[in-house]
Amino acid sequence: MTGEEISLFFRDLQKRICDRLEEADGKGSFSSDYWQHKEGGGGLTRVIQDGDHLEKGGVNFSAVSGKLNPSIRKALGVEAEGFFATGVSIVLHPQSPLVPIIHMNVRYFELENGQYWFGGGIDLTPIYVVKDDAKSFHSELKKTCDRHSADYYPEFKKWADDYFYIPHRAETRGVGGIFFDKLAGSSEQEKLKLFDFVKDVGETFLKAYLPIFNRNKHLPWTDKQKEWQLIRRGRYVEFNLVYDRGTKFGLETGGRVESILMSLPALVSWKYDHKPSPDSEENTTLEQLRRSIDWIS
Amino acid sequence: MTGEEISLFFRDLQKRICDRLEEADGKGSFSSDYWQHKEGGGGLTRVIQDGDHLEKGGVNFSAVSGKLNPSIRKALGVEAEGFFATGVSIVLHPQSPLVPIIHMNVRYFELENGQYWFGGGIDLTPIYVVKDDAKSFHSELKKTCDRHSADYYPEFKKWADDYFYIPHRAETRGVGGIFFDKLAGSSEQEKLKLFDFVKDVGETFLKAYLPIFNRNKHLPWTDKQKEWQLIRRGRYVEFNLVYDRGTKFGLETGGRVESILMSLPALVSWKYDHKPSPDSEENTTLEQLRRSIDWIS
Repeated sequence: MTGEEISLFFRDLQKRICDRLEEADGKGSFSSDYWQHKEGGGGLTRVIQDGDHLEKGGVNFSAVSGKLNPSIRKALGVEAEGFFATGVSIVLHPQSPLVPIIHMNVRYFELENGQYWFGGGIDLTPIYVVKDDAKSFHSELKKTCDRHSADYYPEFKKWADDYFYIPHRAETRGVGGIFFDKLAGSSEQEKLKLFDFVKDVGETFLKAYLPIFNRNKHLPWTDKQKEWQLIRRGRYVEFNLVYDRGTKFGLETGGRVESILMSLPALVSWKYDHKPSPDSEENTTLEQLRRSIDWIS
Repeated sequence: MTGEEISLFFRDLQKRICDRLEEADGKGSFSSDYWQHKEGGGGLTRVIQDGDHLEKGGVNFSAVSGKLNPSIRKALGVEAEGFFATGVSIVLHPQSPLVPIIHMNVRYFELENGQYWFGGGIDLTPIYVVKDDAKSFHSELKKTCDRHSADYYPEFKKWADDYFYIPHRAETRGVGGIFFDKLAGSSEQEKLKLFDFVKDVGETFLKAYLPIFNRNKHLPWTDKQKEWQLIRRGRYVEFNLVYDRGTKFGLETGGRVESILMSLPALVSWKYDHKPSPDSEENTTLEQLRRSIDWIS
């Protein structure tokens, strides 16, 4: 199983996801920007803007190679210099405050000495937490994980709770999902099994998100709900720019800025010391932005 | 000259600046939030929102004491644990895209072993660069610097060019200004002279900004110019959340989040791969967002 074979799957996954999202939106269509990495390889960034239901969304594919500088080698705890990395990253910001923001990433990383690992994650960020949506989302992720190992869902659900967390706000980014990194095996057979899992996570994206998207996309919403959405998007920006490792790694290593920052919403608002009233739906959502909630049972 | 005496000046400066800004706005008024630091001291955060000309602005005063944790001591290169810090920070986001964003900070930091330093800076972020404004702004800063040392303006202007810079965009944040840090002396007399300089910088804020504010605040502007303003504000957010040392230090040391992030604009926009047309005013501004421009002569 070579890096190139893995990247071919990712490239195809990107296409299939974009096609289905265009269908679900009904109006918007994804642009295609091919780009090259200065050291080797490149990618295809696909962005939808001003759709009927998707205000802004990006689905990025990349397959790049290059050399890691000493400080990044140290941060990753690796010695080899030459690397190959491939993956798909998605962030969608819907028009409606009743449709959650979604993020997915699946990735493969390989060093010239043969060392490799897989990583990935999916997490859902509702503007208003709806328990049935969170439950259907987590159930779909658990089904996928359980097909590969009974340990995966509990372990990767906890990892997402810890990763998609905004310490300075003491809030999770949303209702979480799964997150995993540095999955590696010691035989070709184990590598194939890990790739099967990562493929399965990639295929789960539409199954986990589209039902929520379609259930909520036609619901009417108010200006007040839109305002709350812009404030919650501010938290999304805070997480991505202050904490997200992929964003930081990308900016530090001279990645393509527009592909990295396509995750930022079209319109965002920061109000000083905004506090929803205690009995509001907005406050109910805030109270549920914490770790260790079991959304399924 | 004790830390408390210095903080009394800063506290008074905050009040005088807020009074004059309310006058210049004509409608908006500053709220007052007193807050306490968990270890010792506290501050007063004053915020204006939805003014006639100021869309959102904050003027923060703080005088806090506490203990530095080992990783921060290492980053600062100091050994003593107990500290006292006081200062004033300002960021103003005008309604009009024809009025520049302004930032000022003056600060004093002291350790229990007697070590101390002053720091500060002022920088101007026009949405559309106007050479006469940049010139009057820098001239006012140079006048202030020159009263204290002929070395200050060239040195601190260069420091601002390097500090208020967004590497991933290869853009300066605006037309720069001055920035300085770790100014310390070896006698009480030298300390008094440095404090005189920092006071003078504080007093320069209104002299350097209000003429630009008043010259431009009544000019009519278009939707297209407002859109460009929201995009440029996105760069401001990127700088503050990814690079600004004060913001990072504040968030990491458990500072009051709403006072730190009051610098973020009320409304911001990110468009994928936005590029102004080559012959537009927007593009002319982009071309001037680079270091080492001599704005005065």
